[in-house]
Amino acid sequence: MSLYPEAVRALVDTALEEYFPAADTYPEILYQSMRYSLLAGGKRFRPVLTILAAGVFGAAPDSVLPCACGIEYIHTYSLIHDDLPAVDNDDLRRGLPTNHKKFGEDIAIMAGDALFAEAFSLISRLQTASDQRKIIEVIREIAAASGPGGMVGGQVVDMASTGKPISLETLRFIHARKTGRLITAAARCGAILGGATDEELDAVTSYGTHLGLAFQITDDILDETGSVEELGKTPGQDQTLHKATYPALVGLDESRRLARAEAKAATAAVDKMSGNTGALRDLAEFVTERTG
Amino acid sequence: MSLYPEAVRALVDTALEEYFPAADTYPEILYQSMRYSLLAGGKRFRPVLTILAAGVFGAAPDSVLPCACGIEYIHTYSLIHDDLPAVDNDDLRRGLPTNHKKFGEDIAIMAGDALFAEAFSLISRLQTASDQRKIIEVIREIAAASGPGGMVGGQVVDMASTGKPISLETLRFIHARKTGRLITAAARCGAILGGATDEELDAVTSYGTHLGLAFQITDDILDETGSVEELGKTPGQDQTLHKATYPALVGLDESRRLARAEAKAATAAVDKMSGNTGALRDLAEFVTERTG
Repeated sequence: MSLYPEAVRALVDTALEEYFPAADTYPEILYQSMRYSLLAGGKRFRPVLTILAAGVFGAAPDSVLPCACGIEYIHTYSLIHDDLPAVDNDDLRRGLPTNHKKFGEDIAIMAGDALFAEAFSLISRLQTASDQRKIIEVIREIAAASGPGGMVGGQVVDMASTGKPISLETLRFIHARKTGRLITAAARCGAILGGATDEELDAVTSYGTHLGLAFQITDDILDETGSVEELGKTPGQDQTLHKATYPALVGLDESRRLARAEAKAATAAVDKMSGNTGALRDLAEFVTERTG
Repeated sequence: MSLYPEAVRALVDTALEEYFPAADTYPEILYQSMRYSLLAGGKRFRPVLTILAAGVFGAAPDSVLPCACGIEYIHTYSLIHDDLPAVDNDDLRRGLPTNHKKFGEDIAIMAGDALFAEAFSLISRLQTASDQRKIIEVIREIAAASGPGGMVGGQVVDMASTGKPISLETLRFIHARKTGRLITAAARCGAILGGATDEELDAVTSYGTHLGLAFQITDDILDETGSVEELGKTPGQDQTLHKATYPALVGLDESRRLARAEAKAATAAVDKMSGNTGALRDLAEFVTERTG
């Protein structure tokens, strides 16, 4: 039984609070709306992954925190925009009303946009590295992961596929782009800032890719089996939206098997690496244990 | 009578076409939607300004084109999001149906998000500079200009002020953030990449700040006096939305006077600089001549 790295999550939560402007910054409603979604808790899976990946190469958490938090900003912005009435029309997120339910649709759109901008602000302003090329590299990595070739592209294919029968191949594509790409980027950024060699970066990329898919299959499973308390969002929402999921396409048992296989592949990718890869292996194990 | 630097605009248009992925990139609808708004023409005021500002310091247009185009991506994304039904609910833009009218609200939101990401992709991937610190500096500049302390913050105050009596001071704040900040950033990025000293960068910043305000007052005036053909968007839209404008607050004549005064202040800011500042002075003149 692997435990989630709560100490690392706590570091992330503290940094998010610290970096974020005071709640009374003008215009207050915008900062309140950003803060509402950003500081609503959550596993902080992506920034935790950045820190753990950096740790493999001996880099201290502090040295990657601006980049790690910037990735969480982007994840949060994407949740706000995906929840909008014109997109998934979700009412509940992380156990609270979604951003537009609380602040209105116009402010929610702007809060998402603002978090996206602040992500790059944070990284370009606070991230330090002896080699400035590394900072440019992580910015490139994160921009590519969140753009049309990554997260946004996956979301658009997801939207276009909703209510239609799709193949497992298409579903894999959606997951790889919509959530997988930013999770992979989170791992890669940690490795880049930590000073990974090209070969090591390849191993971390493979780890992140498999982990991202394991994470998303698990999410699909939990959407079916979890309660509103466990999920912090409306369960069965995928089915209500007629979204394709792994359980819908291959059943619950096969989904669990696939999630475990992906987590195993993630672990195998970093097994041959030197450095402290134990935390990455534990994280992969944790992901699949969530599915029971 | 100053003419718009059409040759520079043509360089920008060519580069925008060149950088943009093929129209049949998957998912096609997303790239079509991005392309629809990005390549719909327009003055390309911001990227032109970046190129002209770089030229003061002897930097060739080619050397700043990725950054200049990235700024146009961000301007375009902001137009798409501002036009959304939940925000300004505009039907016409650059003479064509707005993005959501053409592609639907969900795709329009995603196209804006994708353009925002691609802006940073473009700059971090293609922008070259002998000193990598400069690239990080322009990314920081653009992120700050487009975030809650800049463009998005201005848009939120604009939304909150719509239909309410506001002071000239608040209007100035809205204009300075919503449009001014990115225009100033466009000038500053050109100067930074061109190798301006701190003192020169201050002069360009002052130029951009005054020019941005002149530009926006002019826009307010044209919204009242222009035709749909001249504007490429619905004229009188500001009044329909009960948005505060300079003409509404101080009248047309005083607005024209203020626009000219700002353009003059812009020119004065670069007058003491060495280097070829003629193009910047011409641009400031052009802005106010648009108001008749």
